[in-house]
Amino acid sequence: MALLVDLYELTMAQSYFVYKRNTLATFDLFVRDLPPNRNYLVACGLTDVLNYLKNLRFSRQDLDYLDKLKLFSQDFLKFLARLKFKGDVWALPEGTVCFTQEPIIRVTASIIEAQIIESFLLNTVNLQAMIASKASRVVCASKDRKVYDFSLRRTHGSDAAIKVARSSYIAGFCGTSNVLSGMLYKIPLVGTMAHSFVMSFKQEMDSFLAYAHVFPDKSILLVDTYDTKKGIKNAIEVADYLKARGHCLQGIRLDSGDIAYLSAWARRMLDEAGLDYVKIFASGNLDEFKIRNLIKRGAQVDSFGVGTNMGTSIDAPSLDVIYKISEVTDDNGEFLPTMKLSKGKVTYPGRKQVFRVEDRKKRFVKDVLGLEGEKVRGRPLLVKVMQKGKIIYRAPSLDKIRNFAQNNLSRFPEKLKDIHAEYQYPVLISPKLFRLRQNLTQQLGDRQ
Amino acid sequence: MALLVDLYELTMAQSYFVYKRNTLATFDLFVRDLPPNRNYLVACGLTDVLNYLKNLRFSRQDLDYLDKLKLFSQDFLKFLARLKFKGDVWALPEGTVCFTQEPIIRVTASIIEAQIIESFLLNTVNLQAMIASKASRVVCASKDRKVYDFSLRRTHGSDAAIKVARSSYIAGFCGTSNVLSGMLYKIPLVGTMAHSFVMSFKQEMDSFLAYAHVFPDKSILLVDTYDTKKGIKNAIEVADYLKARGHCLQGIRLDSGDIAYLSAWARRMLDEAGLDYVKIFASGNLDEFKIRNLIKRGAQVDSFGVGTNMGTSIDAPSLDVIYKISEVTDDNGEFLPTMKLSKGKVTYPGRKQVFRVEDRKKRFVKDVLGLEGEKVRGRPLLVKVMQKGKIIYRAPSLDKIRNFAQNNLSRFPEKLKDIHAEYQYPVLISPKLFRLRQNLTQQLGDRQ
Repeated sequence: MALLVDLYELTMAQSYFVYKRNTLATFDLFVRDLPPNRNYLVACGLTDVLNYLKNLRFSRQDLDYLDKLKLFSQDFLKFLARLKFKGDVWALPEGTVCFTQEPIIRVTASIIEAQIIESFLLNTVNLQAMIASKASRVVCASKDRKVYDFSLRRTHGSDAAIKVARSSYIAGFCGTSNVLSGMLYKIPLVGTMAHSFVMSFKQEMDSFLAYAHVFPDKSILLVDTYDTKKGIKNAIEVADYLKARGHCLQGIRLDSGDIAYLSAWARRMLDEAGLDYVKIFASGNLDEFKIRNLIKRGAQVDSFGVGTNMGTSIDAPSLDVIYKISEVTDDNGEFLPTMKLSKGKVTYPGRKQVFRVEDRKKRFVKDVLGLEGEKVRGRPLLVKVMQKGKIIYRAPSLDKIRNFAQNNLSRFPEKLKDIHAEYQYPVLISPKLFRLRQNLTQQLGDRQ
Repeated sequence: MALLVDLYELTMAQSYFVYKRNTLATFDLFVRDLPPNRNYLVACGLTDVLNYLKNLRFSRQDLDYLDKLKLFSQDFLKFLARLKFKGDVWALPEGTVCFTQEPIIRVTASIIEAQIIESFLLNTVNLQAMIASKASRVVCASKDRKVYDFSLRRTHGSDAAIKVARSSYIAGFCGTSNVLSGMLYKIPLVGTMAHSFVMSFKQEMDSFLAYAHVFPDKSILLVDTYDTKKGIKNAIEVADYLKARGHCLQGIRLDSGDIAYLSAWARRMLDEAGLDYVKIFASGNLDEFKIRNLIKRGAQVDSFGVGTNMGTSIDAPSLDVIYKISEVTDDNGEFLPTMKLSKGKVTYPGRKQVFRVEDRKKRFVKDVLGLEGEKVRGRPLLVKVMQKGKIIYRAPSLDKIRNFAQNNLSRFPEKLKDIHAEYQYPVLISPKLFRLRQNLTQQLGDRQ
């Protein structure tokens, strides 16, 4: 993955190699602005970032290709051949609810190493935090109903498919249809049947029975290929058939039509037939708004399958995630804070920490963005995860990350989780950071 | 990649294994509806689809995991262990401009094989056709200016990053910043410098000189870190410095502010300084609308770097791409056409072909969706690419695909390429297909 990098990272690195080989720098990876419909972000992607940093190497093949570009000196290519990431990394643990300007990852390393890793870090956190943040809204909307990731066919490629399953699981999804993610991350799998399956049989009932015979206790029958009400009645017949033989139909799935009405109708029919254990699944272009609306309208749905809208974060398919230099060493090796001044793109200088303040009931009331080591009330959120290139952070299991995420979110004000309303959780700037930025704004004026 | 599959593909396959082991079926992969802002699609992804089909195998590790799920019989797992894709595949060559309902890929195979490949095929074509279609709009908007893929940091993961570079190149982009895609696909690379590079030096000029010394003929200086006009003046000084030493500054990059005004100002300043060869690059949240607007306002930009908006297809981050069964063999092995009847989701039955009709000037005037072998005026577009599991299609080089795509698009009416206006290119249904669907609609009524 060393070449999964923007060319300019490598050309800048060669320039640093000539002029600033011993310079150290700190970079913050953070989100500048929240997308529409988002009151918070869920930090995600650290596991992949750490694996990347630990294993970052330029292979012989990589170097041969770079050589052919006729941009790089032999000295620099030899340097790349030996390059390992040897910096320090601080990060928000995966599952942490966070906000704009708060560093999700903070890197202090040789400026060459810190620069080369930019593209991969941005790509990784953009995808995973974006999906975890979107999926968290879907979970909030679904309240006590279960939600499952059905997005594999519409995620942007295979890597996204795998990471969407993991990120949405962290955010509170209950499982995925994606078998590879099930294997890689031990995420529970879920599956039903497709319309093509029903259509490949002469009669709908033949298809239901063929499936039920093979999976007598694990069948979820898709009832909307032809007439949905007839489909529900056929499913009830199959449930009776299974019941008589000591088996249980697991559920039915509705994928089109008026889900609120049809699910209520199906629930009544199932209950009247003594089949209260048969679950109702719904799918079909769902998102947090549609799910909330279905619940409001009395839909009798036990589980929602959510695909495209979550798996592409359709209303905000990217985060405004950036990676900005915040300090750099001078000729004496002393760190000097720095910041960006472009219009509307001003950043905060210095080595920063996020402090989260809670009340006596352990509810979060505000965050303070301050400087590392500054005395600020509140618990520091950034954790040291890598020291001199060695991972010193023991990542929790995926289920522990998922529990942590849910517990974390539960301590925020309810307004934050309202999918319909905008709410700005207070993130304050500490006095020291405020003064540093003021002073620096004046100093940096004469850099041209 | 065999496990990059929705669980239900495998459970349906096991049911087929018990009940329909010798059944053959045809599936069409196509887009049901165009997203907003799209008048056409660009077929893309076939190369990866063919590689997947050719190499599809379930490994020992895959099978061990499936076994643990307690869903699959030993007989079926043994069957999967030996499974290879042995079907026939027809497809639109990559770069073909196409429309809704037109099969992009058509698969005829054992129903088990045809079913298992669904998730991967949808995932692959969704991403690549979506990006090629979006990128094609950006190319149309840019007219004779060059456009480059700068999206790596915001694509959805690593696979998307690589495929976006390739798909956008096919659509007419001139290169990418993504080094790995450059290596994998021989796509030209482009790169400039980052704000952090400028900020890591005490003075902007120091950063420009440090870069220019290392890349005396290949420097594109980023001029908007502090005051943009001062940055342009500094870049001109560097260009003079290089010129005096027999070198050429390649360009400057504008990444913020009023690009139309600043680029015109920069062009004038550069020209007045005798630096007409210095190119102007623009970037910063660009899409086809902003590029068209910049050109309209007289922006003097030679090349645009387009990132997030293209690389996520931001206004339409998924296609309504589906994979539907269109015929299936009966007990005698005869193919019988079938179709979906769900409300608003009706499909076309039978083994279909797309015929493209041109006028005497070789301009395309309409498409006809008909049945394979039907006598229809127009050139058939679907090409046989795989026979009994063997690739029989010699894929053109990437540059040939790119040329084909541009030539293909040039033969359509200008209205099709208008980024602001909706235009529906005529896609007619052939008489035979029309009748088949009518008759089948009646027949399928009694499937419940």
